[in-house]
Amino acid sequence: MTLFRSQLGDVLRERRAGLGLTLREVSKAARVSLGYISEIERGQKEASSELLASLCEALDVPLSTVLRDVADAVALEEGLVTADAVATPFEASRRPDEMVAPAA
Amino acid sequence: MTLFRSQLGDVLRERRAGLGLTLREVSKAARVSLGYISEIERGQKEASSELLASLCEALDVPLSTVLRDVADAVALEEGLVTADAVATPFEASRRPDEMVAPAA
Repeated sequence: MTLFRSQLGDVLRERRAGLGLTLREVSKAARVSLGYISEIERGQKEASSELLASLCEALDVPLSTVLRDVADAVALEEGLVTADAVATPFEASRRPDEMVAPAA
Repeated sequence: MTLFRSQLGDVLRERRAGLGLTLREVSKAARVSLGYISEIERGQKEASSELLASLCEALDVPLSTVLRDVADAVALEEGLVTADAVATPFEASRRPDEMVAPAA
């Protein structure tokens, strides 16, 4: 069975890692205990809707983007799409203004 | 603040209504109490990942489709897209084999 919290945890961890943030930094920004965030990232705890909103804010990503990334990951698990059809979660969640031009 | 559970509740209720199912029927199929499903549909309770999976099964819709519909609804609330850019949740969640030809 594909569980929402497992895929959500992966998406949140990838986003955090992509930003180069530590659990401690996100914990402080989202005002959520470090242990709780860690459990959420490992898919061991459900995140309440309020907590999820705080995490998205701390990770500077719209909730809709996180949910789309989770939907893509779930679709892959469900075998409804192939990996080629799904952009990598972190790239997909970047906004154009976050794109960094390669050094000249 | 856009809450996941509020948008999820709307998407689940629209799906159920679109299928013409009663709360009682979904409650029986998903083996979840009627009151609990009702609270989830009204965005008053968080659905655990296991419960969400059961509800999707009872509503004969992939979890990924529900999550995409929720992501679309959240994006609308966030002002990231306009209504025109988002298909109506129930239509978007239909699979081709569910499409019914109009009576001749």
